[in-house]
Amino acid sequence: MAEQAFVTLATNDSYARGALVLGKSLRNYKTSKKLVVLIGPHVSDQSRAVLHKIYDEVRLVDVLDSGDTAHLAMMKRPDLGVTFTKLHCWTLTHYSKCVFMDADTLVVSNIDELFDREELSAAPDPGWPDCFNSGVFVFRPSIETYGKLLQYCTEHGSFDGGDQGVLNGFFSDWATADITKHLPFIYNMSSIAIYTYLPAFKQYGANAKVVHFLGQMKPWSYTYNPTQRSVRGDVQASSHPSFLLQWWALFSGEVVPMLLREYGDQPFYSGCEEDVSESEQVQPLMSSAERKQRWEQGQADYMGIDSFDSIQKKLDAFLK
Amino acid sequence: MAEQAFVTLATNDSYARGALVLGKSLRNYKTSKKLVVLIGPHVSDQSRAVLHKIYDEVRLVDVLDSGDTAHLAMMKRPDLGVTFTKLHCWTLTHYSKCVFMDADTLVVSNIDELFDREELSAAPDPGWPDCFNSGVFVFRPSIETYGKLLQYCTEHGSFDGGDQGVLNGFFSDWATADITKHLPFIYNMSSIAIYTYLPAFKQYGANAKVVHFLGQMKPWSYTYNPTQRSVRGDVQASSHPSFLLQWWALFSGEVVPMLLREYGDQPFYSGCEEDVSESEQVQPLMSSAERKQRWEQGQADYMGIDSFDSIQKKLDAFLK
Repeated sequence: MAEQAFVTLATNDSYARGALVLGKSLRNYKTSKKLVVLIGPHVSDQSRAVLHKIYDEVRLVDVLDSGDTAHLAMMKRPDLGVTFTKLHCWTLTHYSKCVFMDADTLVVSNIDELFDREELSAAPDPGWPDCFNSGVFVFRPSIETYGKLLQYCTEHGSFDGGDQGVLNGFFSDWATADITKHLPFIYNMSSIAIYTYLPAFKQYGANAKVVHFLGQMKPWSYTYNPTQRSVRGDVQASSHPSFLLQWWALFSGEVVPMLLREYGDQPFYSGCEEDVSESEQVQPLMSSAERKQRWEQGQADYMGIDSFDSIQKKLDAFLK
Repeated sequence: MAEQAFVTLATNDSYARGALVLGKSLRNYKTSKKLVVLIGPHVSDQSRAVLHKIYDEVRLVDVLDSGDTAHLAMMKRPDLGVTFTKLHCWTLTHYSKCVFMDADTLVVSNIDELFDREELSAAPDPGWPDCFNSGVFVFRPSIETYGKLLQYCTEHGSFDGGDQGVLNGFFSDWATADITKHLPFIYNMSSIAIYTYLPAFKQYGANAKVVHFLGQMKPWSYTYNPTQRSVRGDVQASSHPSFLLQWWALFSGEVVPMLLREYGDQPFYSGCEEDVSESEQVQPLMSSAERKQRWEQGQADYMGIDSFDSIQKKLDAFLK
């Protein structure tokens, strides 16, 4: 029987950071499965080198080079390029079964039991729970399925402009056909659950196995102070601080040293605070209006007045 | 075989308005089932009289009077009074099967097919989709189940302080056991779906069969201009305007006249604009800050500057 693998996708160096942390988290919880990362052409050589250390297979994907079917499809619907990239995972036919995980997910438990499930198993999306969230799903690589997916994609497009719309359109009986294809929400626990139904998060959130950092702000969008073990930035309710801290502890402790070795003398911004304090001068005080303007421009004072700590305290207070 | 019934609950006159509209909407879509409303002691005589015209059965519930088991349970957990009131629907044993619907739901299609489902069937809650939303559910009245529910309730309480927490705790295999007990989301479409996953709402929302006005602002919290057929107030994304308009068209057109007949010479505030303009003088112009303050105090200028129309236009623009 062919092997089984976890598969993720990194289209640039930011998502590569996510993939590195995800891979490390899978390794730390002693997965017995292979790890595969699909990368886009924009991922740097340094990131690729470290991905090679953590992943068993690093595969460059570029839909325009992926064969006639995809090429043809792309010509008709160039808007769906990113979507096609993710569908590429179905071409990994040297594996009998795979679990796809977005690069903005983090494993906080061994989840090898997911391979007991069949295609297409996924957890509900909180936004419209008759749709599954395509951040974590079980699938069977198959060129036939890949071809059908591309065909569906070019004929019907995606109702949300992304892979989730295509996959929900294609696997349209997910909501009604087979309960075993409904992964428990703790296998794809998105942060939205925290602020839309806090009591349920308090009741069930401690059992989380996979955390999904949905939304615009990703873990790598923040900065981190390894000494204080604290994250700074406009955290709000977008992710639970303790999971964000887990992500950063793994990234700063295990991934950054590997990246630093690859970058050597070349400039490299890790997002850890030591770098920042070396390169930046002490900020002058600013007015409330100026601060608001900077915040809205994405220039929050992560290390000073816009500290993560007070936001974390506020969120944690909810959970006690 | 005993009959089947839709069941709702009105603990005060505001929710009685919801129950009246819900009952009317079920009748308008020609349900073949009986209609039952459980009412609390605070519902006025006038509301009761109109409920009697629309519902087949109006049953006063007061958990303290509902027998030894409930009484005993209430003594231990007085905090769960409202929760007990809803569980009371299991005592309607003269019906073989029932569908419970919250008074803040509106039927926009015949839904008698729900009676093909078994206990406990319900739609996922968007906040934590492994929980069902207890605003719409299929159940089998049974004194035995009622007793077990009360026992569960007193022993375990409710993780969210309401009936949804109790029912999800009691019917805890809903997420994993039987896909036929997952009602499609269109049978309990809460407004949260509109702003958390707009593309899915655009794709599937037109098939809605039951709209659930979740959140603090209920349809009866707004005012309505029957001439312009427009709702005024701080609508935001809390409910889709077209469904809110449907609610008000039904309430002002079919329910208010019945209520007015019962109130006769006594004062009665329908929420329709004619009443307001008779009793209120023309508002003086106010500053932006003053307007903001009034808005935040819940005193929006529903008929003037804070008109519903612009908000409606904005929301409708999303859906085109």
